[in-house]
Amino acid sequence: MSDTMKALVYRGPEKIGLEDVPVPKIIEPDDAIVRVTTSTICGTDIHIWHGGMPEVEPGRVIGHEFVGEVVEIGPAVRNAKVGDKVAVSCVTQCGECFYCVRGIYSHCTTGSWIFGYMIDGCQAEYVRVPHANLGMFSIPEGLTEENVLFVGDILSTGYFGAENAEIEPGDTVAVMGCGPVGMCAMTTARLWGPSKIIAVDINQQRLDVALAQGIADVAVNPLNGDAVEQIKEMTGGMGADRTIEANGFKATYDMAIDAVRPGGNVSFIGVFEKPQELAMNTLWIKNIKISMGLLNANRIPELIKLIQAGKISTDFLITHRAPLNDIVTGYDVFGNKKDNCLKWIVTPYQR
Amino acid sequence: MSDTMKALVYRGPEKIGLEDVPVPKIIEPDDAIVRVTTSTICGTDIHIWHGGMPEVEPGRVIGHEFVGEVVEIGPAVRNAKVGDKVAVSCVTQCGECFYCVRGIYSHCTTGSWIFGYMIDGCQAEYVRVPHANLGMFSIPEGLTEENVLFVGDILSTGYFGAENAEIEPGDTVAVMGCGPVGMCAMTTARLWGPSKIIAVDINQQRLDVALAQGIADVAVNPLNGDAVEQIKEMTGGMGADRTIEANGFKATYDMAIDAVRPGGNVSFIGVFEKPQELAMNTLWIKNIKISMGLLNANRIPELIKLIQAGKISTDFLITHRAPLNDIVTGYDVFGNKKDNCLKWIVTPYQR
Amino acid sequence: MSDTMKALVYRGPEKIGLEDVPVPKIIEPDDAIVRVTTSTICGTDIHIWHGGMPEVEPGRVIGHEFVGEVVEIGPAVRNAKVGDKVAVSCVTQCGECFYCVRGIYSHCTTGSWIFGYMIDGCQAEYVRVPHANLGMFSIPEGLTEENVLFVGDILSTGYFGAENAEIEPGDTVAVMGCGPVGMCAMTTARLWGPSKIIAVDINQQRLDVALAQGIADVAVNPLNGDAVEQIKEMTGGMGADRTIEANGFKATYDMAIDAVRPGGNVSFIGVFEKPQELAMNTLWIKNIKISMGLLNANRIPELIKLIQAGKISTDFLITHRAPLNDIVTGYDVFGNKKDNCLKWIVTPYQR
Amino acid sequence: MSDTMKALVYRGPEKIGLEDVPVPKIIEPDDAIVRVTTSTICGTDIHIWHGGMPEVEPGRVIGHEFVGEVVEIGPAVRNAKVGDKVAVSCVTQCGECFYCVRGIYSHCTTGSWIFGYMIDGCQAEYVRVPHANLGMFSIPEGLTEENVLFVGDILSTGYFGAENAEIEPGDTVAVMGCGPVGMCAMTTARLWGPSKIIAVDINQQRLDVALAQGIADVAVNPLNGDAVEQIKEMTGGMGADRTIEANGFKATYDMAIDAVRPGGNVSFIGVFEKPQELAMNTLWIKNIKISMGLLNANRIPELIKLIQAGKISTDFLITHRAPLNDIVTGYDVFGNKKDNCLKWIVTPYQR
Repeated sequence: MSDTMKALVYRGPEKIGLEDVPVPKIIEPDDAIVRVTTSTICGTDIHIWHGGMPEVEPGRVIGHEFVGEVVEIGPAVRNAKVGDKVAVSCVTQCGECFYCVRGIYSHCTTGSWIFGYMIDGCQAEYVRVPHANLGMFSIPEGLTEENVLFVGDILSTGYFGAENAEIEPGDTVAVMGCGPVGMCAMTTARLWGPSKIIAVDINQQRLDVALAQGIADVAVNPLNGDAVEQIKEMTGGMGADRTIEANGFKATYDMAIDAVRPGGNVSFIGVFEKPQELAMNTLWIKNIKISMGLLNANRIPELIKLIQAGKISTDFLITHRAPLNDIVTGYDVFGNKKDNCLKWIVTPYQR
Repeated sequence: MSDTMKALVYRGPEKIGLEDVPVPKIIEPDDAIVRVTTSTICGTDIHIWHGGMPEVEPGRVIGHEFVGEVVEIGPAVRNAKVGDKVAVSCVTQCGECFYCVRGIYSHCTTGSWIFGYMIDGCQAEYVRVPHANLGMFSIPEGLTEENVLFVGDILSTGYFGAENAEIEPGDTVAVMGCGPVGMCAMTTARLWGPSKIIAVDINQQRLDVALAQGIADVAVNPLNGDAVEQIKEMTGGMGADRTIEANGFKATYDMAIDAVRPGGNVSFIGVFEKPQELAMNTLWIKNIKISMGLLNANRIPELIKLIQAGKISTDFLITHRAPLNDIVTGYDVFGNKKDNCLKWIVTPYQR
Repeated sequence: MSDTMKALVYRGPEKIGLEDVPVPKIIEPDDAIVRVTTSTICGTDIHIWHGGMPEVEPGRVIGHEFVGEVVEIGPAVRNAKVGDKVAVSCVTQCGECFYCVRGIYSHCTTGSWIFGYMIDGCQAEYVRVPHANLGMFSIPEGLTEENVLFVGDILSTGYFGAENAEIEPGDTVAVMGCGPVGMCAMTTARLWGPSKIIAVDINQQRLDVALAQGIADVAVNPLNGDAVEQIKEMTGGMGADRTIEANGFKATYDMAIDAVRPGGNVSFIGVFEKPQELAMNTLWIKNIKISMGLLNANRIPELIKLIQAGKISTDFLITHRAPLNDIVTGYDVFGNKKDNCLKWIVTPYQR
Repeated sequence: MSDTMKALVYRGPEKIGLEDVPVPKIIEPDDAIVRVTTSTICGTDIHIWHGGMPEVEPGRVIGHEFVGEVVEIGPAVRNAKVGDKVAVSCVTQCGECFYCVRGIYSHCTTGSWIFGYMIDGCQAEYVRVPHANLGMFSIPEGLTEENVLFVGDILSTGYFGAENAEIEPGDTVAVMGCGPVGMCAMTTARLWGPSKIIAVDINQQRLDVALAQGIADVAVNPLNGDAVEQIKEMTGGMGADRTIEANGFKATYDMAIDAVRPGGNVSFIGVFEKPQELAMNTLWIKNIKISMGLLNANRIPELIKLIQAGKISTDFLITHRAPLNDIVTGYDVFGNKKDNCLKWIVTPYQR
């Protein structure tokens, strides 16, 4: 193992590139070092690339969705040994703080989402995993790395959105936004027994994928007429029991609130760059619940079990695959939604 | 409409027969009279037949699982009109008492399970439906009577058992008893996203049906070795996250308690004739929750929606079908589990 | 009983006055007629008076918070007889519709809040109570009418706000707005075992009442410095676990959202006249839950039990008391918060 | 700090005595060594003394309820430093295993209740605290050691019983057993807003304490007539909404099940030595939920906050106090309920 490695480094808005950087080392007793064997480019990485997250310092290695092989562990790591293949949570969690004991790992006071944001991330050959005891999960026999690649971020984000929606058996659930995260929300929303999942997007190709994969029962394209009206028509004029927003823009924000029935839930998992309006003058009497937030990633073992049992699958999201050498191309293709790209997978650097 | 009709009348233990009895009339303003178009024989009817429920008075028309057509309504009935095809809840509910406002319809102070028990039931040509506003549900376009025949009793009983089990996505659920009610528990347990449903029964033919129908993922036959051990082996030695007992005997009672993991739930829906032992000397430290009770039948509209959406189906339970004329034969075949009978369906009397 | 009675009639914005109108009659079989023996002026009545609710038709008798004596019942009324003293819910509920069976009485399709809004209300000598079976509650021996006067509206509204806040034992709860509704929220928030209730208002006299009554543990006056900062100081920099907004204006709306900790709940019960801004650009990562709505009034019997047991009391809210003859004065005094008025009680018309 | 210390050592049934034993040392990186400054004798210690827990090996230092001062910490301890005064959980928890991430600390695979049971306990001058990051809690300014002495065991046990009872505002709660644990259940049951707490015991002196302390509203002494009948009379014939059993014997077990209303909860926290009968022949239709188990001790910081805020207090339980020198006398007095002893407090060894 050499002292340096290849890594995608952020150097400021619109400036990213592969560089040679030092291989990370164990710092805390519960750290692990993982060799990244498969990773992805995530929507948040695109935000960082464009400078939308100025808190990211130049010099930062980005990326946070990955699986890999443990190559070194600190003396307090109990849940893995060198050589283990692991899926890793993008949310770092200590398990001890006020938030962690409540399962709100997203606000862990010494963790939360930090990979490729506050500390170096996974678009590299190696990555340091802090609080490894709670953030690394063995990949069971019979599953490939790609089978579980998304459990650490987008599948857990979809699950978080579906869980917050408080879906009950028989409900109608509308998901605004049919990108990879929205599709993960549809995939996991099924786990609570809805009678109907409605996919909403202006991208017909993505709607068609959702229908073909069986994760949506109906598709609504706002280009074909007012989406809220279409949803109300499908629900006897009442509105959806629950809506999940997975886009982050005004149009879908408004739809999510307008299309839900009284007493229903609106669950936001989109990343927003702008404030929105909340029509409290009409909503004060509508009895809805609105939730939002960063994923907790607290059900990764259960998601792996469900994948293993064949109950859910995210393999269809993998449309592109290339070695770390080509990652800058990946940012362009995935970031600009070229070539019907849903997820761009990064395989190891080819020397 | 004649003044008399054919009905199965209970005359004491082991004494049932078709008789001519008066057609029922409206008594309370929220009563409806329903012409029974399809009904069933239920396990509880068999208990009554054998004299196991001495509180049933001789002269009682039995039966409580049915669909039909509304032929008359009282002045306070708001949810149906003459001619409507309706599925009917076996649990009568006022919607107003202490229990009803909490959703515990099973203990409605002027309702609960009374059809074919405290008042005349549905194994007849007509039946009086008290508190019709909350107990009758329109059969939607596109569904047959048989599609929704079980929503009023056994499907709601299965749902009740699954709901009480507090299943979470990814859980392993073991169902002890693979009769019609146990199969309904499996069918509805899926609505909460378990990774694995284990069917347990000594009747291999029924286990095979459960596997073939896709409502169970694995079958455990206690004739092939200790069931609890088999379940522990399938769960890494831990036990099932939730167990549902749908049989009513000591063997399955013990299994349900012994096969659940610490912190798990045991949900009883079997009808028991005898007290059982609760090993508090070992259980006081096991952190389990045990629930039991008569179905609440409070999710019938949602079950109908799920059937309509193709998410669940109970059609496979219908193995036998004959007119009311032959119902005494039905008691023998269904009651004695002859001819692989799962459910015996009663069609209208043939004149 | 004469054919006409005195009643406060709304004739358009700023136009209210006592008039002689017909005594109401039974229309539906589950109606009751109640002689109003004690009623109140509520904040919503003030909105109507000022024309803030243009959907109220001129000619409407207003008022919706009251107790009285049953003088006539329809044939389907089962829960009361003539002569009974009853507290009445301001939310009319059928108990049968989609919303009622879910406990969301506020959206009952043939009820909801209609008294003094869509149908004639209680600032009169008599009032018709629809769906009386679910909306009238006997006043138990030993309690006065005034003891239970608020269970039908503001105490249930406070309860609804506290319930939606999902308070857990030990929590810190901040209530923005220390008017009668805010004080009811504080009174009922205690039922979930918080360690600290913080009252927030710019009216120091009301804060002093809340402290003196022991319904708040600490008072925060925004006139003494930024309220959010004061709350954060009291909570180790973290923010309140739950906030309840009972005012309906931008200042308290903002406080409620800004003063809650990550993972906490914001519960709105204020009546808003304007849309507000929701800073999704920062909140998408804050993991909060926001609820809002009209009270469900589904726990009136329990509130009466708690009053009877001496666990809660709202008697201190009654600062003014005068017969129906003087009600227009009451609108001025209560509506303009003169004379430290918290609640203006209307006693029977004096001939 | 000497190498040896005084400690109460178990040498077999009925054989306990003070001995000189080695002072414990750090073994794992997340261990702490605590100087015990105040401890107690707990009911479970009495079981051990009498040989009722044969799994306890002779030579074991017993005791598990205590507060103390940190004198040494392992390199992975993050939540305390030498010199800190801490309350300690009797349940050891890793925060990482299947059970801990679900909050079921009582079944932590490397923890659970082990102090004075599987590892050496606190009736000694020093004790080793494993997994110290999750099991030690700072005692805040203004509180004495005795104020928080019970948070680590009996107060958390009472809380666990009350939490499992799923109490709702306005409920009637009956607590069977008015010993220290039962009194802690009453103290914490109030946190969920019941309208009435009924204390049940044959020891009138303890009932009088519960009433005088205001933790019970009513007392029922089975010596004065059938307890279940007395409870039904107080609840309009219905039964208590929730019952909590804190005794561990047949009489109170039966009462807890018989005195609960349909749809209610029975919560067991008593330690049972014998199996009991569960009358499934009548209960199958009663719709009750039964829970049981070892405390999770997962709300210690909240209990400390509530004590600090003056919302709950357990100081009245301290009836006896003596140095470690006299602990064998304490076993006799507390264990045999002599001299109205509720809790025997152990202060440091006097040289």
